[in-house]
Amino acid sequence: MPRVVVDVMPKPEILDPQGKAVLGALPRLGFAGVSDVRQGKRFELEVEGEVTEAVLADVHRMAETLLSNPVIESFAVRVEQDA
Amino acid sequence: MPRVVVDVMPKPEILDPQGKAVLGALPRLGFAGVSDVRQGKRFELEVEGEVTEAVLADVHRMAETLLSNPVIESFAVRVEQDA
Repeated sequence: MPRVVVDVMPKPEILDPQGKAVLGALPRLGFAGVSDVRQGKRFELEVEGEVTEAVLADVHRMAETLLSNPVIESFAVRVEQDA
Repeated sequence: MPRVVVDVMPKPEILDPQGKAVLGALPRLGFAGVSDVRQGKRFELEVEGEVTEAVLADVHRMAETLLSNPVIESFAVRVEQDA
């Protein structure tokens, strides 16, 4: 079954407290070399039938209206090979 | 600056209430054709310097110890072109 992935990330100008918390924890756990962390969401949608342009347009609307908050988040839609 | 992405998803056998909530909301919003939704997390790590095998091994350990709960979540690490 084809899978469509929607990645939702906080916009660059938006403060990301979850990412900052991870970034702050890394040195305490002994990890160095990471200069920034941003945390977002990943949605995997199993789609019935083929992934047509119409289906992708639908997923875009889902991402805009339900999966993300367009004021503070940006999203990307892509088709992924079934694992 | 190179970016390493860590995707964290609930394991297939684990109930995913957030994904189920999204799945249940889709028909109410007029969307059809999606048979399953799973929600996970996406981390974008900005790495200083080159992404070597050692850096990726470090990120794997970060994912295991901090970014995911290996009991209920699986993760994938990949290098992404800078946006």
